[in-house]
Amino acid sequence: MTERRLQTLYTRYRKSINRRLSEYAKTRRPATVYAPIRHILSAGGKRVRPVLTLLSCEAVGGSAGDALDAAAAIEMLHNFTLIHDDVMDHAPVRRGRPTIHTRWDENVAILAGDALAAQAYRAILRSPRRLKKILGAFNDAFITVCEGQGYDKEFERRNDITIGRYMMMIRKKTGRMISVSTEIGALIGGGTPREVGALRSFGEQLGTAFQIRDDLLDIAGTPEEFGKTIGGDVKEGKRTYLLIRALALTGGAERRFLASLAPESRITQADIRRVRGIYLRAGVLDDALDEVERRTHRAQRSLKSLRPTAARGMLMWIADQLLRRNR
Amino acid sequence: MTERRLQTLYTRYRKSINRRLSEYAKTRRPATVYAPIRHILSAGGKRVRPVLTLLSCEAVGGSAGDALDAAAAIEMLHNFTLIHDDVMDHAPVRRGRPTIHTRWDENVAILAGDALAAQAYRAILRSPRRLKKILGAFNDAFITVCEGQGYDKEFERRNDITIGRYMMMIRKKTGRMISVSTEIGALIGGGTPREVGALRSFGEQLGTAFQIRDDLLDIAGTPEEFGKTIGGDVKEGKRTYLLIRALALTGGAERRFLASLAPESRITQADIRRVRGIYLRAGVLDDALDEVERRTHRAQRSLKSLRPTAARGMLMWIADQLLRRNR
Repeated sequence: MTERRLQTLYTRYRKSINRRLSEYAKTRRPATVYAPIRHILSAGGKRVRPVLTLLSCEAVGGSAGDALDAAAAIEMLHNFTLIHDDVMDHAPVRRGRPTIHTRWDENVAILAGDALAAQAYRAILRSPRRLKKILGAFNDAFITVCEGQGYDKEFERRNDITIGRYMMMIRKKTGRMISVSTEIGALIGGGTPREVGALRSFGEQLGTAFQIRDDLLDIAGTPEEFGKTIGGDVKEGKRTYLLIRALALTGGAERRFLASLAPESRITQADIRRVRGIYLRAGVLDDALDEVERRTHRAQRSLKSLRPTAARGMLMWIADQLLRRNR
Repeated sequence: MTERRLQTLYTRYRKSINRRLSEYAKTRRPATVYAPIRHILSAGGKRVRPVLTLLSCEAVGGSAGDALDAAAAIEMLHNFTLIHDDVMDHAPVRRGRPTIHTRWDENVAILAGDALAAQAYRAILRSPRRLKKILGAFNDAFITVCEGQGYDKEFERRNDITIGRYMMMIRKKTGRMISVSTEIGALIGGGTPREVGALRSFGEQLGTAFQIRDDLLDIAGTPEEFGKTIGGDVKEGKRTYLLIRALALTGGAERRFLASLAPESRITQADIRRVRGIYLRAGVLDDALDEVERRTHRAQRSLKSLRPTAARGMLMWIADQLLRRNR
């Protein structure tokens, strides 16, 4: 397929997901609960996770329409985590819009997040078959993403985190939400255990690549490209791939400076520029890019065992896109 | 059955629930997520909701053991709402212990709450039969309690709330969590649609009685009896049964004072004493008690259609207990 054809198809999948999401966002009252939910669901976004669900369903011979409710459920569960994470990270902007706790307040954000998680379950309950397996996977992802967020918080004040521990954390925080998207799509499509396994492992590799790329964009991108504040991870003292690598590769004053970054240390724009300078000199931006590439290719190799369908081709292409994404 | 025998049986049910809950609280890491969960689940409490689940299961001829996971799920979902509500209401104490956001911080409370909701789903997924129906009811309760909390928040700044609107709000905020406890118990026990309906309606009436009694205890009890701060509702500007009735029955300076109560108006201990004085003079404490009694009896009448079993007797007795409870 040509690049243009792939783009057109992606847009078609994305639109069908947005239509289904808007059905779940129809309830109006109480406005305290549903106005913020509409605010976040209508902000757009790439809808990568639900598109992966639809394509994974087709890649094992299923029909994408059967997976639409599950796809909407996954996007809603993902948005629920965004709402609460943004409160915890004090993030002012998301997808170019004020975050819910900024536009309303923290209480509204807590409550709207909870209600969105509940709506996500309402949607996943409509899956047409293999409900118990699907719910088990969905619930496992919900628990896992909370655990990942917990480790992320715990790591913020520590300078002894290894890349191995970091990888465990992002597999939970980001990887599982993406691997559950492909896994559930394959389950609904009637995939064999081998097919479901291949798509789940594609999602997991892609998810970790995605998180490292996100770490990179936080410091290497521009606000316009990124849709959120630059250096937000630095400000919150997040132990990212870059920071952990740089802590291992630097010494003296540079390392002491990096080690001092913590949520409560009032970090300035000049500090963020200094961090970026250290990362450049230590070569950790290149290291991260290599890691993203390696994991993306590993993800693509997982798909080799599937029949060569149009859906498989699109999954390969999406992985390539994520490798190149700048927002 | 004698009072003593009923107490002994209740304790036995409560202990079996606590044992099952402690199995769900076994996971240790990340501590940020699981230590607060253990903190709240081990604080005790009457466990009314899960005991109602076990008894409802038996009241339709089922075996309580089959409903233990569902009972634990309901208690966990309830505790999840307590964690987030306490953050939103700035409540310092719960069941005589510091609340999670007080002992740790707000971020920990948000995250631990989320993880506890996820654990609740893990437990409910283990229900031995009628899974789709049970999940539908469980999920409906989750959505409904969020909506009720939303209305509760919206009402805080308004003085035009009628008793009718208040009843709608507490049916959602409190009633549904209790009616889902009895409904799911009856479903697992293999109840007929008529039996399930009777137990659900028992739960709903009992739930609203429970909330009005709670409103009453907030101002009429002592901290030792109540296990939380006295006048917390007044401080948070909550539109309780008492305040709504008093707004309708008073005039002049008294009414203006009551109408001025809002979350942001720094309310003192003297203000709380003044509120209590107005409530006494207007007779709204007695009104509330009458309403609790009426609803409790209505709840008990719903059970008349069930076979006269020991479980039904205990459900009747629990309703009586709640009528008399002072904490």
